[in-house]
Amino acid sequence: MSDRAAEIRKLAELAVRFGANVQRGQVVAVGGELGQEPLVRAIARSAYEHGAKFVDVTYNDLYVKRERLLHADEDTLEYVPPWYGQRVLAIGEHHCARIGLSGMAQPHALDGVDPIRAGRDQLPFLAEAAQVVNQRTTNWCAIAGPSPGWAELVFADVEPREAESRLWDQILHVLRLDEDDPVAVWKRRADTLTGVARRLTENRLDALHFEGPGTDLVVGLLPSSSWMAARFETVDGVVHMPNLPSEEVFTTPDPARVEGHVRSTKPRELNGTIIRGLRVKFEGGRAVEVDADENGDALASSVQRDAGAGRLGEVALVDGEGRIGPLDTIFYDTLLDENAASHIAFGSAYKFTVDDEADRARANESAIHVDVMIGAPDVAVTGVTGDGRRVPVLVEGRWRI
Amino acid sequence: MSDRAAEIRKLAELAVRFGANVQRGQVVAVGGELGQEPLVRAIARSAYEHGAKFVDVTYNDLYVKRERLLHADEDTLEYVPPWYGQRVLAIGEHHCARIGLSGMAQPHALDGVDPIRAGRDQLPFLAEAAQVVNQRTTNWCAIAGPSPGWAELVFADVEPREAESRLWDQILHVLRLDEDDPVAVWKRRADTLTGVARRLTENRLDALHFEGPGTDLVVGLLPSSSWMAARFETVDGVVHMPNLPSEEVFTTPDPARVEGHVRSTKPRELNGTIIRGLRVKFEGGRAVEVDADENGDALASSVQRDAGAGRLGEVALVDGEGRIGPLDTIFYDTLLDENAASHIAFGSAYKFTVDDEADRARANESAIHVDVMIGAPDVAVTGVTGDGRRVPVLVEGRWRI
Repeated sequence: MSDRAAEIRKLAELAVRFGANVQRGQVVAVGGELGQEPLVRAIARSAYEHGAKFVDVTYNDLYVKRERLLHADEDTLEYVPPWYGQRVLAIGEHHCARIGLSGMAQPHALDGVDPIRAGRDQLPFLAEAAQVVNQRTTNWCAIAGPSPGWAELVFADVEPREAESRLWDQILHVLRLDEDDPVAVWKRRADTLTGVARRLTENRLDALHFEGPGTDLVVGLLPSSSWMAARFETVDGVVHMPNLPSEEVFTTPDPARVEGHVRSTKPRELNGTIIRGLRVKFEGGRAVEVDADENGDALASSVQRDAGAGRLGEVALVDGEGRIGPLDTIFYDTLLDENAASHIAFGSAYKFTVDDEADRARANESAIHVDVMIGAPDVAVTGVTGDGRRVPVLVEGRWRI
Repeated sequence: MSDRAAEIRKLAELAVRFGANVQRGQVVAVGGELGQEPLVRAIARSAYEHGAKFVDVTYNDLYVKRERLLHADEDTLEYVPPWYGQRVLAIGEHHCARIGLSGMAQPHALDGVDPIRAGRDQLPFLAEAAQVVNQRTTNWCAIAGPSPGWAELVFADVEPREAESRLWDQILHVLRLDEDDPVAVWKRRADTLTGVARRLTENRLDALHFEGPGTDLVVGLLPSSSWMAARFETVDGVVHMPNLPSEEVFTTPDPARVEGHVRSTKPRELNGTIIRGLRVKFEGGRAVEVDADENGDALASSVQRDAGAGRLGEVALVDGEGRIGPLDTIFYDTLLDENAASHIAFGSAYKFTVDDEADRARANESAIHVDVMIGAPDVAVTGVTGDGRRVPVLVEGRWRI
């Protein structure tokens, strides 16, 4: 039988000491959802033991959001109190550490809610958080946080206790916490991915071509788009792992040059609803048709939120060697599901993956950032250079570059 | 059998529509503790139904505070991130409504924690909250919020379900929610208390003299101290009930003129510990000796926090007609227990109960505000005028003024 308290502590230690790499004297902002309390408290403990000055915890309660979506006046649903963004900017100004727990701890909170109304309320996502990421002032980590609610969603066909046990087993596996020295294993994996990123950047690709069942999509890149993976470094030189697990290599696309059509390869949770069988058609960089087998309205509403919401802010590649893909589990959680497959993201771009200032000004801006998984072993990815040369990048889940 | 959902809804409606008196288009800040989620969500629903623009919920988790008190560096325990206070000030600037739930939902979270370390961390109390109260920009209400944890603390000798049922019954009673028209009953009670406050102010007392077992205390008043009760009005003319229940008539004392000794008549929860049998000796307005049968250290540490922490910021009188006293229940909750008995408060003063500007500058200032119950049927309260005339105020729990 597993010792849950020990597992919680292991995960918390990984988040604090390796993921966010909390420094002595730092304030640590921790965000969790109700249902993740034991993990949040273990992270607080680990942070204080490691010399944190203060741990600033915020709990998100989707059942409060539900009341808003059901009962608030239609024209107030996009309102965000100014102090929400100001807090995030202050956390940036104070060079804090940030740890966020992913995983749908309250998976049924928004059941039956109108997806169009849900799409208008982007909270807890804040545009200022993307701004702080771009300024590289905070060492941060988003890490998968198991909870009873999430376990029941992912393993709906077994008893709640068995479901929770299976979720913990899989999360410990994908987080490499079943290894003797998880940090050493993570460092090797990060070395591989940053190597691929370096070679992709050196090839100075003009576009990526995705080809597979239901997908024929060309994503243009900016002349100085550079590829990144796994490890970030703050302006203060603190190295951290923004995502745990992290299996992707990503860059910033040209928001004006995306053409063709694409079919999602994984379900996608958005504002509490699950979008399945998504199909998007692009013209001139913009999503002109959004359709899905289920809940396409949620994304259709989100991509109309502002001028940049229907254009791409990220393109990411994932190989078959990560630990998530082989599990063949649908986690209904972007952090995990996106790391199982290559993906594109609607909305705000990371500007630090664009080297040239003029190009950086062209990177997409939006109040949203919504990843959609489009990769699979049967989706080939080919790079296209400015002079039309085709460079195989990812074939049957293996790097060819 | 009671219908808990209906009771929760009744309490939420009282908080929103009568207590805070939420106006259409207002942002409503709601503060609760983990364990009070159903009430918090019902308040959010009621606020949105009543036209709130946004409900900003913060959940406090004392188990996170526990980790701080156990593991953080000693010299960081008084640190508060600046954005905590900035948020409260912004809520004031935006003329929001504020609703806070009292009641120890996590009564054992700080068990075994060093009370001196606990006294150094005043959160979730913020000095800026007192500032916003003084500016009268927000319509606010602190209301008792039943929870399973609180019920088990108050009714420790019965089964958890029975305890929860008893707590709900008593809270519904003290909130007048067992009346056909609770709002009409509350309005009458508020009329009585504001009448007493008016007559006390008209008498222009120089001091109050408390006499009873273990108590012989003279509390000096400022020349322009005026008495208030029950109802406040914001700068925008919104009438609200700061406390529900509210049974007290209160004013601001002269922080330099408090002499004698006093014995507390009720246990007092402070930073998660319970102080019993408190004894305080005052000289020249300052607490010079603090002792107690249990956990006196928690208060002794708090009153040394800053220059004003050992001086009084409030004196309040409670008659025997309130609904809390007759229950003879110890709620371990200031909002309820203080409304069962007359009390004094260490720390920050409400400045709006001082009419003259020069006097207002003398009102006490501190980062803390800690009420201590000193009233009982056998504690007589006598007013003393500037020319030495003695005016009976409260005898055997009845108003004599």
